[in-house]
Amino acid sequence: MKLVSGRRGIPAATTRRKAGQKGPGRPEGQSVVRDDILDAAEVLFANLGYAGTTLREVAAKANVTQALINYYFGSKFGLFEAVFMRRSQIISQQRIENLARLRAKPGKLKVRDIVQAFLLPTLAFRSTPEGRAFLRLQARLHTEPPQISYKLRTDAYGSSTRMYVDALRQALPKLPELDAYWRVTLMVGTYLYAFSDTHRMEEMAPPGLYDPDDTDSLIDQVTRFVTGGMLAP
Amino acid sequence: MKLVSGRRGIPAATTRRKAGQKGPGRPEGQSVVRDDILDAAEVLFANLGYAGTTLREVAAKANVTQALINYYFGSKFGLFEAVFMRRSQIISQQRIENLARLRAKPGKLKVRDIVQAFLLPTLAFRSTPEGRAFLRLQARLHTEPPQISYKLRTDAYGSSTRMYVDALRQALPKLPELDAYWRVTLMVGTYLYAFSDTHRMEEMAPPGLYDPDDTDSLIDQVTRFVTGGMLAP
Repeated sequence: MKLVSGRRGIPAATTRRKAGQKGPGRPEGQSVVRDDILDAAEVLFANLGYAGTTLREVAAKANVTQALINYYFGSKFGLFEAVFMRRSQIISQQRIENLARLRAKPGKLKVRDIVQAFLLPTLAFRSTPEGRAFLRLQARLHTEPPQISYKLRTDAYGSSTRMYVDALRQALPKLPELDAYWRVTLMVGTYLYAFSDTHRMEEMAPPGLYDPDDTDSLIDQVTRFVTGGMLAP
Repeated sequence: MKLVSGRRGIPAATTRRKAGQKGPGRPEGQSVVRDDILDAAEVLFANLGYAGTTLREVAAKANVTQALINYYFGSKFGLFEAVFMRRSQIISQQRIENLARLRAKPGKLKVRDIVQAFLLPTLAFRSTPEGRAFLRLQARLHTEPPQISYKLRTDAYGSSTRMYVDALRQALPKLPELDAYWRVTLMVGTYLYAFSDTHRMEEMAPPGLYDPDDTDSLIDQVTRFVTGGMLAP
């Protein structure tokens, strides 16, 4: 069975458009400009954090005016929200689809398959610089102030992540409910760290042992570790 | 056996003083002022990130002049380094001591004991607001730009973390070397997330199921998950 992990998670031109933002009389090509703003903001937020990024810098990097950013996104938080939701909603949707595919298979749900179904949609992001910027931004999100992070995270991932808690409890009926929530939460923490270019492995391992471009090895190591954690007594 | 996890990890008045910083003619009480600066900077760096924090804000919060900050720390990076090293060196030292205690016990090294020896020194930090600020700062470090993060992390944790790789390989002689580095790295990612006030559990779990103040449950859940990951096939 093929789980969704393709490049369709990283379309630079896919945006979430709010009702009313594309009014009559808007110049053509505006969605390209809107995407340029999102792309520029993504890299800056990823590198400098929410507080460290100014709309002035975003405007300079995207080669637009600050007024245009305000027109499209209303505020710095509106821009951050759009940057985050653009990709996180795709990840969330792919996770839901992957789980539906697993459930459609005959036989009992396997923990390893659940873990892979959860991880693969994010892994695809590691193959482009923009995707990597998003993963850094996301890993950083949980250290942003609550008013920035909680609502976005819940909006983007709340319902799909809860589906994985249910799946885990179905696969491991004896696992207490609290433990199931903990283990899914710790899976999130593990992949956020592992997938976000921490370079810890490069620093730690002796030269030649670790290949940072070996994505198959990355997913294999994380899947085995997390599956072991899920199945712990 | 008692592993080190006490409050001695969180002394507000313990600082690392560089040679020459306490010259003759300095006013008394300077180390208190220096600590005040470090305390203020710790909270700001934790909340705003490196790029988002200005020396002006640190000066205002610590009620000192920017010139005094420059006198003590030389630069913003010097200040960040001092904030980070003040606590991380204590954690690192406690981890080394814990491992030495484990090795002094008769019998084979147990994976679960190794995991606890690594985790406990950090757990103590969760009991104070300053300690929690440090954990957020540290969780955030890996998404800071490489020139900020790599050297500090390696200086603080490089050698002690490698000792845990060796201990894991001793406890699990059949585990390939690369896997041992991966598993210790993933343990780091897991605890950074779990211990740094992400509030993910509060958001996810049904009301009443999860108690954020139950530190025993936290360490138990993380230890079991990570031990399961370490022991995975």
